[in-house]
Amino acid sequence: MPQAPFVPVIPAGGAGTRLWPLSRRARPKFLLDLTGEGRSLLQGTLARLAPLADRPPIVVTGAAHEAAVREQLASHSGVRVVGEPSPRDSMPAIALAAALVEREDPTAVIGSFAADHLIGDQAAFREAVRLAREAAELGYLVTLGITPTHPATGFGYIEQSAEEESPGAGAGAGAADAGAAADAGAHALPRGVRPVARFVEKPERERAERFLTTGRFLWNAGMFVVRASVLLDELAAQIPPLARGAREIAAAHGTPEQAEVLERVWPHLTAIAIDHALAEPLAAAGRVAVVPSSFGWDDVGDFAALARQLRERPAPAGVEGSEDRGGGDVRVLGSAAVDAVSSRATVYGATDRHIALVGLDGISIVDTEDALLVLADEQAQDLSALVARLERRGLGHLR
Amino acid sequence: MPQAPFVPVIPAGGAGTRLWPLSRRARPKFLLDLTGEGRSLLQGTLARLAPLADRPPIVVTGAAHEAAVREQLASHSGVRVVGEPSPRDSMPAIALAAALVEREDPTAVIGSFAADHLIGDQAAFREAVRLAREAAELGYLVTLGITPTHPATGFGYIEQSAEEESPGAGAGAGAADAGAAADAGAHALPRGVRPVARFVEKPERERAERFLTTGRFLWNAGMFVVRASVLLDELAAQIPPLARGAREIAAAHGTPEQAEVLERVWPHLTAIAIDHALAEPLAAAGRVAVVPSSFGWDDVGDFAALARQLRERPAPAGVEGSEDRGGGDVRVLGSAAVDAVSSRATVYGATDRHIALVGLDGISIVDTEDALLVLADEQAQDLSALVARLERRGLGHLR
Repeated sequence: MPQAPFVPVIPAGGAGTRLWPLSRRARPKFLLDLTGEGRSLLQGTLARLAPLADRPPIVVTGAAHEAAVREQLASHSGVRVVGEPSPRDSMPAIALAAALVEREDPTAVIGSFAADHLIGDQAAFREAVRLAREAAELGYLVTLGITPTHPATGFGYIEQSAEEESPGAGAGAGAADAGAAADAGAHALPRGVRPVARFVEKPERERAERFLTTGRFLWNAGMFVVRASVLLDELAAQIPPLARGAREIAAAHGTPEQAEVLERVWPHLTAIAIDHALAEPLAAAGRVAVVPSSFGWDDVGDFAALARQLRERPAPAGVEGSEDRGGGDVRVLGSAAVDAVSSRATVYGATDRHIALVGLDGISIVDTEDALLVLADEQAQDLSALVARLERRGLGHLR
Repeated sequence: MPQAPFVPVIPAGGAGTRLWPLSRRARPKFLLDLTGEGRSLLQGTLARLAPLADRPPIVVTGAAHEAAVREQLASHSGVRVVGEPSPRDSMPAIALAAALVEREDPTAVIGSFAADHLIGDQAAFREAVRLAREAAELGYLVTLGITPTHPATGFGYIEQSAEEESPGAGAGAGAADAGAAADAGAHALPRGVRPVARFVEKPERERAERFLTTGRFLWNAGMFVVRASVLLDELAAQIPPLARGAREIAAAHGTPEQAEVLERVWPHLTAIAIDHALAEPLAAAGRVAVVPSSFGWDDVGDFAALARQLRERPAPAGVEGSEDRGGGDVRVLGSAAVDAVSSRATVYGATDRHIALVGLDGISIVDTEDALLVLADEQAQDLSALVARLERRGLGHLR
């Protein structure tokens, strides 16, 4: 069992343009109730992680969303919300949270999980986190990798090391060194945790298919479990000013200088994703481990994913099959009254208009006060092109 | 050339539930601009007929729509608008118009044309009306029949008599008699006009296909050209109180008793369609003739028909192909700003919302303030089932 205290970290950011006009710049995906369960993705994420926390979880979000986040989390006592003065990608956000945790307890392990993903099997998720914490206490950067169910081209992949290879290790070690693999015997990974060979960016279709046939590749769900001090020490070796800046902000946290230091230091932190800053170089050094997982993960990246989610789950209150005498299946999220004939569709109704559907198959409809989207689920990924040109068409206020 | 004065009659009625929510009870199809030409179907119908009129055309409409009709026709001097106190189907409306015309000139010929149909080739239409007037002056009830382009199941059909059969005739004759066919020689139909054997209600698909193979069947477009006095005399033989009532109301028209007589007599007129009241029995008696026509007629009966119309016509101002970089084809009717990716669709935008489409094929979208419809064109006929149950669902106000 893990020994070190565990602190969940939840970076709450991301535009989510492929869920427009449901998600907007001012109302990003993590603030939305996309499951009809009566809570936002952020609230669901916190509900999942809070029971695992030995110290209050930390939510890091953009200054623009800080008030909305605090309001949604008002009923969670003890959650810490940290506002980023400006978006600097995921590494500075996680590094700052790690520095805050390290200051309280240098032995603590953090687990960073996106605020806007869905997880089906909660017990399996908790078990995976438990394994990851054990490996993190050995000094690894540990990720939860999702066993692929299809050759997705929208996710990055994690390649596990071939069966016989020994991983590197390095509890308490400083900068990584391939030679550290010699110590691996002393830090044998727990059963169910595997060494990582490398991270791979989103592949083309054929490459994704080859990945699946090897059995070694997992989806990169952006979940990282690591000792706070390991993260910062490794970061100090890779990008020294970033680690130094995060620790400087954390040191001032709670003091009269907090705001001044944050405003002064934050804008100079390197804007970079944790994958590039840490995961890729550490994997090359044999210092990353993965927990292969099958707990039903979805990043709800577009309307096709959302429709799939709503169809697969048992319909909770708020998601209704509408009265459809034509033998269809319509899922409704929101307050809209929907009536349908022979339709398989998903409706996100944010207005009080009556919505009528006839003969649809695999269509998503988003009905909001200022914008209406009608989309064929199988071309859901093409939405971002359309959202991108709103600005050029003088419709930036709709984003 | 026709000798008798010609008076167009335009019955403006009909619910048009298969164009809901564009058409509503309070705003029926004939009041709508469905072509983007900047005028309603009623205005287009009047513009087509007014140049043919020797006396002011007569529009007969429900009391509920009288004000809207007068407003739309304000720029047409001399049009007569007659309000029906209650809907009694087409025969009382046309009989009343015929009686008004008969009172002015017993020799006059009326031509009755629905207010909400579209006609493509105006010159061909005028030529067909000219032929119909010549036949009407011989005492026939004359209809314009549309040469079918496909085995439609949504229209009634007109069967022409087999080539060698002689038609009956009867200029000035009273009640029809099959024996009158002996006089046919004296009233030979003009070239291009054919005797009618019978009218057939909307057929099943297979039957419609058989119709087309014979070459004898035409679509019934509900267009009738007939001497006013012939219509009323024949009606007096079929349904005496209906002819008598229409003539009684017409006699009081323009006198101080007008309103009193209308209110007293109208509710007792037999509610019946002209097809059943006159066309079918007179066809059986050999007293109906047809002008086979190919002037591009459409009753715009549902959204599939409307989409077809908008696609086939050269796009006038108000109907735009949207900016679509995916190679699609989107037609927009109304004020809506539409942006699309890879979509073939038709949008009727009655709000100022931005409308975005992705990956659609053969979809119609109607965006109004209180109701939204998304419909697959190929199932357009199923819409009426949905509209019919609005009442049951407590949504009668949306009809």
